[in-house]
Amino acid sequence: MPNRASVIIPPMKVSELGEFGLIDLIRSSTTQDEISGRTPRHEVLIGIGDDAAAWQGDSQIQLATTDTLVQDIHFDLDVISWEELGWKAMAVNLSDIAAMGGIPKYALLSLALPGGLDAADISRFVNGMTHVAREFGVAIVGGNVAASPNVVITMTIIGCAKGKAVLKRSTACPGEHIAITGYLGLSAAGLEMLKGKTISDAEMGDILRRAHLQPRPKVREGQILIEQGVRTAIDVSDGLIADLDHICESSKVSARIRMEQVPMHPVITANFPNYQELALCGGEDYELLFTADTATVARAKQALDCPVTVIGDMTEATLPARVTVLDSKGNTVPYRRGGWEHFRNGVPGPKFS
Amino acid sequence: MPNRASVIIPPMKVSELGEFGLIDLIRSSTTQDEISGRTPRHEVLIGIGDDAAAWQGDSQIQLATTDTLVQDIHFDLDVISWEELGWKAMAVNLSDIAAMGGIPKYALLSLALPGGLDAADISRFVNGMTHVAREFGVAIVGGNVAASPNVVITMTIIGCAKGKAVLKRSTACPGEHIAITGYLGLSAAGLEMLKGKTISDAEMGDILRRAHLQPRPKVREGQILIEQGVRTAIDVSDGLIADLDHICESSKVSARIRMEQVPMHPVITANFPNYQELALCGGEDYELLFTADTATVARAKQALDCPVTVIGDMTEATLPARVTVLDSKGNTVPYRRGGWEHFRNGVPGPKFS
Repeated sequence: MPNRASVIIPPMKVSELGEFGLIDLIRSSTTQDEISGRTPRHEVLIGIGDDAAAWQGDSQIQLATTDTLVQDIHFDLDVISWEELGWKAMAVNLSDIAAMGGIPKYALLSLALPGGLDAADISRFVNGMTHVAREFGVAIVGGNVAASPNVVITMTIIGCAKGKAVLKRSTACPGEHIAITGYLGLSAAGLEMLKGKTISDAEMGDILRRAHLQPRPKVREGQILIEQGVRTAIDVSDGLIADLDHICESSKVSARIRMEQVPMHPVITANFPNYQELALCGGEDYELLFTADTATVARAKQALDCPVTVIGDMTEATLPARVTVLDSKGNTVPYRRGGWEHFRNGVPGPKFS
Repeated sequence: MPNRASVIIPPMKVSELGEFGLIDLIRSSTTQDEISGRTPRHEVLIGIGDDAAAWQGDSQIQLATTDTLVQDIHFDLDVISWEELGWKAMAVNLSDIAAMGGIPKYALLSLALPGGLDAADISRFVNGMTHVAREFGVAIVGGNVAASPNVVITMTIIGCAKGKAVLKRSTACPGEHIAITGYLGLSAAGLEMLKGKTISDAEMGDILRRAHLQPRPKVREGQILIEQGVRTAIDVSDGLIADLDHICESSKVSARIRMEQVPMHPVITANFPNYQELALCGGEDYELLFTADTATVARAKQALDCPVTVIGDMTEATLPARVTVLDSKGNTVPYRRGGWEHFRNGVPGPKFS
């Protein structure tokens, strides 16, 4: 064994270390080699710590991302249909390519399943997955199946950059605006409804259900952001504050959001007293959160078909809070830190690529 | 929804359909689109049904493969150390790139874990994984972590072909020899030892333990096979007969093995009365099984540093058995069909790419 410095870990459980601590552990263990030059880094442009990994191919930047959905952690088979599950598994992975402004091309599916499931349900799952793949021009080229006590779905998507650049988390600058596509909080509100909250209007109920179970990855939107000169973006999977915090951390800056500018669908404000929390911390909206100067945001707004709302500004790094939320009077709005985080609240969380 | 023909599945459980039936189901559901031209196939060269997927990149053939290890299905934490588990997770995936004769380059890790695990164990896991990655020049560029009731590890490896060709399962021809690198049955024998069988010689015990827990992927060997003109290969993950059967099925040919030529390590023949079964059906040896004409096999033998043994010949397709095993008198040796197969015997099985 080579004489290499080991990462020192005080005795603690994974749940105490937390999801992001665990990602840091993996990152530091794997990048030590890069620092010491022992592992060829090939042409890695973005390693652990963004929505997708990126490396320089022969002529194009290549992208790859992987995400796992675990039964009873990420989904409840009493709530989601198999067709919707197939859709969502593909969509959440495509969203990571969208967050890079990339073109998704190939998918690998790893399916761990109990033997007692109905084969017809797996067929429904594949139909849902294929439906989204077809829409976004993705070919499902391989994968594997294995027996497991619970359902665990891992998708990997491989793609490439649209041009010579990708959207990163690490390039935000103080003074830039913070903008978001679409509405926030719909997915988390949909989950509340699916868990029992009554929504009397059927059409509103349908909007909420689809927001949570059949999210639409903003693939084309990500590509348009790149074309219009945006450099910094992330998809909202963990929640607005948590994902904006990832940008702040990567870019070494802070952020200030104005609460009254956060776009919320009327179905949320009308039916959910906790609408602020849903919009700030809900997660799984799969909208694109990006930062850019005034002119670039204006161009992006013009070029995109969906609503684009400026919700705040990037600032110089401040401590302790990297993300500050202000109300209309300029007072700080308190929020629960964290958004979704695995091992702490056991709900969907971010990936380390 | 488009009006498309659905795959008809009679009411049955996944366990009745079996692993390969399930793979066929996924393949037929996803390739219908390709046939009908609805999904761009980009430049897919090899889709579902080989060791890795392959597509034409700008100048090189690109490869990708994914594999999942499920706690208590693929590994037992009472038997394997965390460092060995990290090694094995990386090695079994590299073996699929080896089976294509390719160059592995980038890895993505998806780790689903219970929160109660020790963080130090995850560090050991990453060290084991990184050790193998370093040896084979692979950069770990991303992945994700998630909470889960049991440990589920999914690795994805992305690489490229060594030259203009890859080793396939579908190109074997009648009259070609069947050859194998190394020895067969060591891994399954190692598992028997780890489950309680006494092996008095410590050195022998160590060979068996490493064969099962720290397999060496034959990456360089696969590249040499391509360089020497071999076109057809598979890695022995399911077992000699099961994997040879995959070649027969893909190539629409049959195979005849001579039992006395199957290479078995002395530790197996001396200590395991069931050595024939271990060698024929044991699986997880991660040796390369290939077919080629006499001159090509001779060149490969010359170029490789490891033992290479001719164990039989490919024949015209016969029914019912595609793989026949003969003893030294030319009599048929009966064997248990199947090798490892998920949902039937719940042990490691093949991937669908």
